[in-house]
Amino acid sequence: MTQRGSDENSILKRILGGAADSTQSLIGHGIRIGIGDDAAVFRPKAGYETILTCDWFFEGTHFLRDMHPPDAVGWKCLARAVSDVAAMGGASRCFLLSLALPESHTGRWLDEFLGGLRRAARKLNCVLAGGDTTRRREILINVAVVGEVRANRAVLRSGARAGDLIYVSGRLGEAELGLRLLRRTKGRANARNPLMKKHLYPEPRLALGQWLCDRRLATAMMDISDGLSSDLPRLCTASGVGARVESEKIPAVWISDSNRKRGLYSLQLAIHGGDDYELLFTVPANKAGMVPGKYKSVVLTQIGKITEKPGVVLLQEKSGARPLNPGGWDPFRMNR
Amino acid sequence: MTQRGSDENSILKRILGGAADSTQSLIGHGIRIGIGDDAAVFRPKAGYETILTCDWFFEGTHFLRDMHPPDAVGWKCLARAVSDVAAMGGASRCFLLSLALPESHTGRWLDEFLGGLRRAARKLNCVLAGGDTTRRREILINVAVVGEVRANRAVLRSGARAGDLIYVSGRLGEAELGLRLLRRTKGRANARNPLMKKHLYPEPRLALGQWLCDRRLATAMMDISDGLSSDLPRLCTASGVGARVESEKIPAVWISDSNRKRGLYSLQLAIHGGDDYELLFTVPANKAGMVPGKYKSVVLTQIGKITEKPGVVLLQEKSGARPLNPGGWDPFRMNR
Repeated sequence: MTQRGSDENSILKRILGGAADSTQSLIGHGIRIGIGDDAAVFRPKAGYETILTCDWFFEGTHFLRDMHPPDAVGWKCLARAVSDVAAMGGASRCFLLSLALPESHTGRWLDEFLGGLRRAARKLNCVLAGGDTTRRREILINVAVVGEVRANRAVLRSGARAGDLIYVSGRLGEAELGLRLLRRTKGRANARNPLMKKHLYPEPRLALGQWLCDRRLATAMMDISDGLSSDLPRLCTASGVGARVESEKIPAVWISDSNRKRGLYSLQLAIHGGDDYELLFTVPANKAGMVPGKYKSVVLTQIGKITEKPGVVLLQEKSGARPLNPGGWDPFRMNR
Repeated sequence: MTQRGSDENSILKRILGGAADSTQSLIGHGIRIGIGDDAAVFRPKAGYETILTCDWFFEGTHFLRDMHPPDAVGWKCLARAVSDVAAMGGASRCFLLSLALPESHTGRWLDEFLGGLRRAARKLNCVLAGGDTTRRREILINVAVVGEVRANRAVLRSGARAGDLIYVSGRLGEAELGLRLLRRTKGRANARNPLMKKHLYPEPRLALGQWLCDRRLATAMMDISDGLSSDLPRLCTASGVGARVESEKIPAVWISDSNRKRGLYSLQLAIHGGDDYELLFTVPANKAGMVPGKYKSVVLTQIGKITEKPGVVLLQEKSGARPLNPGGWDPFRMNR
């Protein structure tokens, strides 16, 4: 971790005390040299390839300073970056944390943030290897994650073929519902509200991604970060195919009567809602029997089929077929 | 590279067109999967360890939007991150670019930025593997670099022993002089002004670092990013030793009479100036004969000795010995 200036050393010390792992744990993760030198040194496993991904996590764009619990900010900034590793069928190993904070947030806010980050790191088996810290008026975060996957086995977006069946994990739209409810809340959100859980504490599907990769079941895979209507077309474009999705089959978020009266519709949230970090994957029809209804308590649902004809079509019982147009995640919806 | 929203896709396309490398070149760098999937996939060389480092590069803190040529911003954001790899004795392989830009800077500014970035990538043998792009009022950059070094051979900060000789590469204070001159300039700096070259286009000492590592000459090494007076104490602390530096030996920036009259002092800039990205390293006294006066046109100068007694002391012919106190890089000097 690069160290600059004495102010930053104090942040660094908090991170070391609050979230860094013991030397033993670092070595177990292949980290030979962690925080404190010019750079981290990581020993890759023989026969494996390295997965690299990074994500911005900005206040105003991805979270709101006064509404999102710092613990959830810490959890989510790592979880969403790790989700890209899950989407390749890999295991997360370590991460670099770049953190810019205002002076006012180097006390309790930082402690709670590091608490959430540390829990995510433990749960996702991903240790802090290094990073960069500085001061800034705004809270700015960048997380770079390093993962591993057996050589030549990463599951890409480009492998879907006509006739493959399309699956999603979990229930779609739950994170979007949480966000909508949070935006109606005054002050800081209650981190324990179960309806907000998926928005505040998403769980990347690491075990499922690895299982699909190991069994060679998935021909293509990606995570749903921007919403099904944005992400499925990307998978189809990368694979040079189209898709037909049956709206009745989509495992959509449950909406209470009172929330429905407030204009929240289950299917709309499920199709266009972002931030779910569920897996979207395709399986050859002749292997469909090997896909269970649940994998380790996560529901797996077949929602449609890959077609030779390009374009993504949504089939609805009442209204028939219509093109599925992207209406998902917009990084500017909160603040510009 | 994570893709979010159509706005970002347009930035992404510019990056792909402007700075991304051909598939052939990517494969040559071990990149199996580059931009376009959930994450990049990198194949590590057998027998090597992976070096990981990342750096913030913010407008207001690290550069000024209206003064720094975008081409120099592109060059420097990569060069300074690669310098951490050089400081371990490694070779840079690939990088992730996280870029946040205002709408107004997605045209010509972005083109020129990508031009500088691409030249640095070629020069430093480091290809773009992925990243994340978004819009933001301010220009915010984070670069994560992946390098490689033969297993167990990385040169750490902690290996200096009493009696080792202390060396620096190049001339110190040149980048600080460039910064001071730039701050006196009105409007955008002239990228071709030779006095500003080191500030605008620093050159990480990759070849030198690898040579010192391969020959097992350096017992400890780091790059001088915050100034000798900040960085040498860090090396000493990590090694559990002290140092005596002879001020007459320090290879200091040349200052013209007119600039000296304006209050710019050679030794002061050399001792406290940041951003030089030269290498600071220690060599056992019995190997000193193997250190040439120049390595590939970069001057190598012995400036002092490691001592058993902790603390860093500066010896001056006139005033004798005094403690060398950090007065280097302050991330907030430009803007808070």
